[in-house]
Amino acid sequence: MSKLKRIVLASRPSAAPTAENFRLEEAEMPTPRDGQILVQVAYMSLDPYMRGRMDDVKSYASPVPIGGTMEAGGIGRVIASKHPGFAVGDYAVGRFGWADHGVANGDACMKWDPDLAPLSAGLGVLGMPGFTAWAGVTAYGKLKAGETLVVGAATGPVGSMVGQLAKQAGLRVVGVAGGADKCRMAVETFGFDTCIDHRGKDARAMGTALRAECPDGIDVYFENVGGPTLGGVLPVMNLHGRVIICGMIAWYNGAVDESAAFPVGKLWRMILVNRLTVQGLLQTDHVSRFPEFLAEVGPKVKSGQIAHVEDVAEGLENAPAAFMSLLKGGNVGKQVVKLSDV
Amino acid sequence: MSKLKRIVLASRPSAAPTAENFRLEEAEMPTPRDGQILVQVAYMSLDPYMRGRMDDVKSYASPVPIGGTMEAGGIGRVIASKHPGFAVGDYAVGRFGWADHGVANGDACMKWDPDLAPLSAGLGVLGMPGFTAWAGVTAYGKLKAGETLVVGAATGPVGSMVGQLAKQAGLRVVGVAGGADKCRMAVETFGFDTCIDHRGKDARAMGTALRAECPDGIDVYFENVGGPTLGGVLPVMNLHGRVIICGMIAWYNGAVDESAAFPVGKLWRMILVNRLTVQGLLQTDHVSRFPEFLAEVGPKVKSGQIAHVEDVAEGLENAPAAFMSLLKGGNVGKQVVKLSDV
Repeated sequence: MSKLKRIVLASRPSAAPTAENFRLEEAEMPTPRDGQILVQVAYMSLDPYMRGRMDDVKSYASPVPIGGTMEAGGIGRVIASKHPGFAVGDYAVGRFGWADHGVANGDACMKWDPDLAPLSAGLGVLGMPGFTAWAGVTAYGKLKAGETLVVGAATGPVGSMVGQLAKQAGLRVVGVAGGADKCRMAVETFGFDTCIDHRGKDARAMGTALRAECPDGIDVYFENVGGPTLGGVLPVMNLHGRVIICGMIAWYNGAVDESAAFPVGKLWRMILVNRLTVQGLLQTDHVSRFPEFLAEVGPKVKSGQIAHVEDVAEGLENAPAAFMSLLKGGNVGKQVVKLSDV
Repeated sequence: MSKLKRIVLASRPSAAPTAENFRLEEAEMPTPRDGQILVQVAYMSLDPYMRGRMDDVKSYASPVPIGGTMEAGGIGRVIASKHPGFAVGDYAVGRFGWADHGVANGDACMKWDPDLAPLSAGLGVLGMPGFTAWAGVTAYGKLKAGETLVVGAATGPVGSMVGQLAKQAGLRVVGVAGGADKCRMAVETFGFDTCIDHRGKDARAMGTALRAECPDGIDVYFENVGGPTLGGVLPVMNLHGRVIICGMIAWYNGAVDESAAFPVGKLWRMILVNRLTVQGLLQTDHVSRFPEFLAEVGPKVKSGQIAHVEDVAEGLENAPAAFMSLLKGGNVGKQVVKLSDV
C-alpha cells in the first residue's frame, strides 16, 4: 500500500500556535468508497479561520481533535473516483486537509475548469476567499457610487477582492494593512485610493488616520481584522452605515488590544445613533450563488480587471511555519502551499 | 398678554436626574407666525430618549440648552392657526415641549382624528412609541411563525406593541420586565407567553432564565434596555438571529453593569459565528410609513385586538417626578402627563 503525508494537530495552542502544535505523519492511502473521490493535491489553502479550529471551542464547525488532520481546502487531480461526476484526471476543489492526498465526497467538491485560471486561483481569487468577499459585498454592502468603504487586511484575498469590487462600483476605497510594502501594493496592484499602515497605531491613532483619509466618513466597513482598526473605524461610521463582519484576525490568538475593548454599551449606542447595520458573514450561507460569482468574476480575473497576488510556500512540511506567519501578517497575498505538480 | 407654563432644563444631571435639574416657569404666550399653529396641550409624552437630550452630547438631535424648554411630543387642540391644514378646534400631535401651550410648524404636526381613539393614544399605542415598535418589527424583524422573540421593557409602549405584533405573527414571545406585577401584566394583558423579572438578576442569571424560557433559542431580540438583559440574551441567540436596537434604558444614566460590559471582540465573535444582523432603529427613518401603520394598527386598537396601558400623571408640575420615576421603571405602561381638558 502506498502512503500519504499529512499534518495533524499535536496539541492545542494557548495563544499563538507554535511548531509543537503540529506533527507531520504518514498514513495509509485511503480508498474512495461509493460517492467519494481520491485526489492528489496540487495546492492547499491556508486561511485565518483555521486558528479557530485548533481551539476546543464550538464555532461554525467542531474543533479539530487532537491527533486529527488539520482542516483545509485544496485543489488537485482526481486519481480514483467512485462518483459519477468526476473522472480520473479531472481537477477538483474540496476539503482534503493538510495532506498531499485526500478523499472527499464528490458531492461536496467542485470540478475545476483549468482554462479559467491557474489551479491555485481556485483557492483564492476564484475560491472561498474571493467568493466570501463577493458574497458579503453583494448581499450586504449596498454599495453606492460616491460612498466610502474601508477594509482591513487589504492585500489579502478577501480584502483585495472587496476593495476592487467597491472601486469598480464607484466608491472611495481605503485599505488598512501592515507595513509600507502592503500599503503600496493595495494602491498600485489593487487600485485602492489609499491604504493606512496599522503598525504602531492604537485605536485613537487609527481613528485620526481614518478621519484624514475618509473626509466624508465611512459608509461601509468590511471587517477582517478587529482590534485597533475596529476601534478607529466605529466612531467614523456614517448614518446608515453597514458593517460586515467576516473575520477578526487581530483577536484570533486571544490578544485583545484594550484600546478597542470598549464595553458593549458604548458600541450599542454607536449602532443606535447612526442606525448602523452590523451583519455576520459566512460564505456557506451564500453557496448557491457560487456559479453566479464564477460567471461574473472569472472573466474579470482572466482579463486582468481583477488582480490577485499569491504567496506560495513549497512542501507540506513548511505549512505550519507558513500558517504561523500568516497569523502575524507575514504573508503577502493569498497564502497557499504547493504540494505537487499534477 | 396671557402666559403659558413650561419646564426648562435648569442644569445638567451627572447621573440620574434630580428635581434640581428642572424649573417650572411662566412665559409669554407665543403668537403663531405664518405656517405655525398654537396648541393648548391636553397630554404631553414622557419617553426615555429625553434623558439623552439633557446631556451635552450630540445624539440624534442637539441637546436641550440650559434654560431651554425640555422637549416632548404632545397632543392638544389648535387655538390659533396660520397653517392652511389646521383650523381652530382641530386636534394636533406635535412637538410642543414640556409646556401647557406650544407653537409648532403645522407641516411638522399631524392632525389627529378623535374618533380613532382617546387623545392620549396619539402619544403611545398610536403614536411615536407604537410606530417605533411596528416599524422595527416590520422593517427588520423578519418574523417567522414558530420562532422566538424576546423584548425588554415588556409592558412599556414599545415592548408591549412588539410583543403583541410578534404574538399575532405566530412567534413565541418572552418578555423581560421589572417586578412581578409587570410580568403578570405582560402575560395577562398583552398576551406574552411568559415574562422574566429582571430584578436582582445579573447577566448570568438572565441567561439561565432565558435558556429555560426559550428552549429553542432566541431568533429576534428587540433591544429596549441593554444592561444584564443584553448580556443574558446574546449567548442564547440562534443562527441568523436579528437584534433590533431601539434603546438601552439601563445605560441612560451612565450606569453600566459590568457583567454585561464584555469587550467588543467577544460580541463581534458572537455576531460572526451566528451570522446575526444587528440593526439600529429610529422611527424617523420610517416616517413615510406612518399612514400604513395607522391604517393597520388603528382598527386593532379600536377593536381591542391590540391592548394598551397608560400611566397618567396630572399637571405639568408633576412631570419631572414622573420622568425620574420612568427612568427607574416606576411607571406602568405608557407614561403621559395630563395638562388640560380640551
